Amino acid sequence: MKIQAKNKSELMKASLGFIDSDLVITNIQLVNVITGEIYPAHVYVYDGMIAHVETKDFNQLKAKEVFDGQGKYLIPGFIDAHVHIESSMMTPANFAKAVLPFGTTTVVTDPHEIANVCGKEGVYYMHDIGNDLPMRQLIDIPSCVPAVLGLENSGAVFTAKEVEELSHLERCSGLAEVMDYVGVIDQEERMMDILNVMEEKGLYIQGHAPCVLGRELSTYLCGGANTCHEVEVGEEALEKLRNGMFVDACDSSIVKNVNAIIQGIKNNITLYDYLCLCTDDREADEITTKGHINDVVRNAIRNGLDPIIAIKCATLNTAREIHIENLGAIAPSYVADMLLVDDLYEVVPSAVFYGGKLVAENGKMVVDIQTKDYPLEHKNTMFVKELSEDDFVIKTEIENGKVKVNVVEYESMNSSNTILVQKEFDVMNHVVQLNDPNLKFAAVINRHENHDTMTLAIVKDFGTKCGALASTIAHDSHNLVIVYDTPKNALLAANALKVCGGGICAVKDNEILHTLELPLAGLMSLKEAKDLIVDSKKMKEAINQLGLVDIHNPLLRIVTLCLPVVPYVKISDLGLIDVINKKIIPLFV
Amino acid sequence: MKIQAKNKSELMKASLGFIDSDLVITNIQLVNVITGEIYPAHVYVYDGMIAHVETKDFNQLKAKEVFDGQGKYLIPGFIDAHVHIESSMMTPANFAKAVLPFGTTTVVTDPHEIANVCGKEGVYYMHDIGNDLPMRQLIDIPSCVPAVLGLENSGAVFTAKEVEELSHLERCSGLAEVMDYVGVIDQEERMMDILNVMEEKGLYIQGHAPCVLGRELSTYLCGGANTCHEVEVGEEALEKLRNGMFVDACDSSIVKNVNAIIQGIKNNITLYDYLCLCTDDREADEITTKGHINDVVRNAIRNGLDPIIAIKCATLNTAREIHIENLGAIAPSYVADMLLVDDLYEVVPSAVFYGGKLVAENGKMVVDIQTKDYPLEHKNTMFVKELSEDDFVIKTEIENGKVKVNVVEYESMNSSNTILVQKEFDVMNHVVQLNDPNLKFAAVINRHENHDTMTLAIVKDFGTKCGALASTIAHDSHNLVIVYDTPKNALLAANALKVCGGGICAVKDNEILHTLELPLAGLMSLKEAKDLIVDSKKMKEAINQLGLVDIHNPLLRIVTLCLPVVPYVKISDLGLIDVINKKIIPLFV
Repeated sequence: MKIQAKNKSELMKASLGFIDSDLVITNIQLVNVITGEIYPAHVYVYDGMIAHVETKDFNQLKAKEVFDGQGKYLIPGFIDAHVHIESSMMTPANFAKAVLPFGTTTVVTDPHEIANVCGKEGVYYMHDIGNDLPMRQLIDIPSCVPAVLGLENSGAVFTAKEVEELSHLERCSGLAEVMDYVGVIDQEERMMDILNVMEEKGLYIQGHAPCVLGRELSTYLCGGANTCHEVEVGEEALEKLRNGMFVDACDSSIVKNVNAIIQGIKNNITLYDYLCLCTDDREADEITTKGHINDVVRNAIRNGLDPIIAIKCATLNTAREIHIENLGAIAPSYVADMLLVDDLYEVVPSAVFYGGKLVAENGKMVVDIQTKDYPLEHKNTMFVKELSEDDFVIKTEIENGKVKVNVVEYESMNSSNTILVQKEFDVMNHVVQLNDPNLKFAAVINRHENHDTMTLAIVKDFGTKCGALASTIAHDSHNLVIVYDTPKNALLAANALKVCGGGICAVKDNEILHTLELPLAGLMSLKEAKDLIVDSKKMKEAINQLGLVDIHNPLLRIVTLCLPVVPYVKISDLGLIDVINKKIIPLFV
Repeated sequence: MKIQAKNKSELMKASLGFIDSDLVITNIQLVNVITGEIYPAHVYVYDGMIAHVETKDFNQLKAKEVFDGQGKYLIPGFIDAHVHIESSMMTPANFAKAVLPFGTTTVVTDPHEIANVCGKEGVYYMHDIGNDLPMRQLIDIPSCVPAVLGLENSGAVFTAKEVEELSHLERCSGLAEVMDYVGVIDQEERMMDILNVMEEKGLYIQGHAPCVLGRELSTYLCGGANTCHEVEVGEEALEKLRNGMFVDACDSSIVKNVNAIIQGIKNNITLYDYLCLCTDDREADEITTKGHINDVVRNAIRNGLDPIIAIKCATLNTAREIHIENLGAIAPSYVADMLLVDDLYEVVPSAVFYGGKLVAENGKMVVDIQTKDYPLEHKNTMFVKELSEDDFVIKTEIENGKVKVNVVEYESMNSSNTILVQKEFDVMNHVVQLNDPNLKFAAVINRHENHDTMTLAIVKDFGTKCGALASTIAHDSHNLVIVYDTPKNALLAANALKVCGGGICAVKDNEILHTLELPLAGLMSLKEAKDLIVDSKKMKEAINQLGLVDIHNPLLRIVTLCLPVVPYVKISDLGLIDVINKKIIPLFV
């Protein structure tokens, strides 16, 4: 696939010098990721494409505008191999504003969060808003909506039919992370149908195969997906690369894998063609303070990767991974996404060109981003039934006495893994009583149209000491999840989120401490990074006040409690979920 | 584009070990062109595809057949990035028999020789016969039939319509060498229409841009083609690689470019992703004695390229160049084209696997090749009118006296370049007389259906001292070309080739010395390599008897005399051609 020039004939004339180019960037050291060289050059741009790279005649400038590169390095614009924009909690437009100054000119985005809430409408929104942005937001079509069929009700179900329909989007780049690797290895119908429809179209298929190795890895690869961003260990990276899998080494706000991957492969391999870089989920705060893909590149270099190779991993290699021929390098007929950097080890861009236009300079945007008005940005997606305190009370047939309950227990404060334990509780007047400060009630309430399913459960070692913590970010179905001490606190939190369209809310002693409003699909704020950071900082402080303190990021504790692809037991709107055996477990033993 | 498994579901089961694979190749050192490593492995094959590469469990063999690799290196099957099978003078089937023992399992072939004679029928033949062969003969659709429109009549004219129609062939790999680079740079309609139709389909576009550099190179690249096999000089290779052009370094029977290219780039570049290897035109004799792509790989290594990189240039890099994802490496889901070699520097395969089947061992085919009967193989394509001696006499209006003639003079014995000189000749009874033993008459007679055009001319320093040399290989329109001393000799040669369906014929003193019969389109013999070599040796000896001796390959002297894309003046059936200015020159000044 090539990104087509708007007018090829005119581009060719500009190449030849028959007409002036729009821009020439002079006085630069070109970093050539195709040959591994660095040399002086002038780069001509016409209508968003590179028309010519001049390495000899530096005197005759045939362009309307001249940009003096001041002897800096010119490198291709960075490509994020896998990202969920929703995880930044920003709209695609505000996300663009946040990451462009760091040199991310292209993202391969998987809008599966919003797809689980808003279905196709959500994907269309994420795609269409990209039309107005000075960055390339490519759309991988979500493959697993919901993550596991039958164990949860999300806002949409994507079969091969929906996936095929969405693949016609102009900026569709492929199929997004095929998370249901068990479904692939077992050749379950839904996954095979989706894989086959996209493979027939010749589109690339993004994988997601944590710890899948050996014969299972071979099976997964033969299924059609050939990338993985879930690699955490060097040995796993080596095996996947050897087997022809693209490894998208990830430094997200949740995991930092680049260190281990580079350390684990650099003494073995000499060719890095299949290594790419990604951020997956990175919050506004971390983007603003550390950077985006350029931070991942920097980390790879610090771990011993040659700077040109590291830059190639975030440019040309990724373009190849996603089958785009004329992206990721600085050469004639390539798109003119380029960065000027002073230092190849720090990779902080002093100028960012997207499609040949200067969009950011010295860490600041220099163009305004104006987008259309999208109705979805003003739609309340909280279709939660009228709730009462009574809805949050776990009742049993026993009037008074004891009852044995299946409890979801967190393995540790640093893990999303949860195990099943059985505990005995007092029952008073049919109501189950908590008897340990490390135990809390949990409710998962379906918040999507045409569903009113709801589950109550008990969790252990979640981390809060008191109050209620509620969230509409609850991967991947994004139902309303609340961990709480009293029904009253729970109801307060639930209603606060219903009114504002979703978000995260902390309640203590019948008082709302803070609500991080995420009105766009209950996932994203409409605020820009700088304001969102203030808001999210307040939210973290409020969560700290609930006693959840010994944790890297308190915002992320609750968001995986419903995710039925993380071991071993989760909660959905349909009940307790045995993840490994893909079945629903009763609350009472 | 992926080469699809016949039954993906079964392949996945074999990967998983649920069902037995067809074959396991054990006890090998796997050369991994993705990571640049060499390590022990067992490779499982199912239904032509690699099902699994085992690097740990070497005991449990889950396959119907075990092949002991005896500790040798297992490398991917070689891919020839650009070849005209017709130039081997063998049918595609005999070509396969000749090259498979040397490890060429895939060729990207441009059937533009036969297309110029037989049109679409010729391309269909070259494609369809490939269905029965144990090698992957991919078809690039000829882009320049004829080479230059309006200056010659060939057997067919391909416009965008014909090219588009042929692009639906199952094994169509892209658009073949876009030779009319002047037409591209000038944006002539025929070339732009053809480029655009293939670019829209996302197919790769093979280039051909000898000495095209600087802004013209940029223009050509923006036009859509991004490969070149015409690079002869290191500096040119470097500029093309830097500009994102694939360089298909070529060692053909005509030119040997690999030496200069590797020497010219190896001290500059560190990344070889865009370097590929090809043979373009290699005769049966050279294939049999030296090898095929493996000989080019060996030459690259002798010039200093690391063996793994050299192998990658003839496998994975080429697969990428032609947009095939699962070819050119040994990994699950890749096609099972593999070679066992004892020595990574000599790269002589002791076993050749095509689609997981052993097809050659120790330099010999071990499978029979049976093809269907193709009518084209029995069709005489020599549609030459009834000729008489008189047709070969150059006449003028002057009865007796002098006349000034535009003469085609060869620059040297080692060059196909010809220049225009003007010479004075005696005229006797209206007939032009030759006055120098270095001068010969030349005739170009259209041999295609519905044409009866013919040109007479005079050539200087062609090399023959006497007799007539005739050929129906006459790039690219492949008309009947004869260089001769007397009309009688010329007529004898012409008639000999008419009868046998074409070929090369030498006549001396009214006697046929030898005819190399090429009945298939006047381009190819039906003989296998071993017999063809005997025949072509006799032909060379016969040409030597005409006095053409100081030349590397006497067969090739005549074949470029009509090629209107080689400087500076050529002869076609329509007249003398001014190549640079694309116009016809009169014979008489």
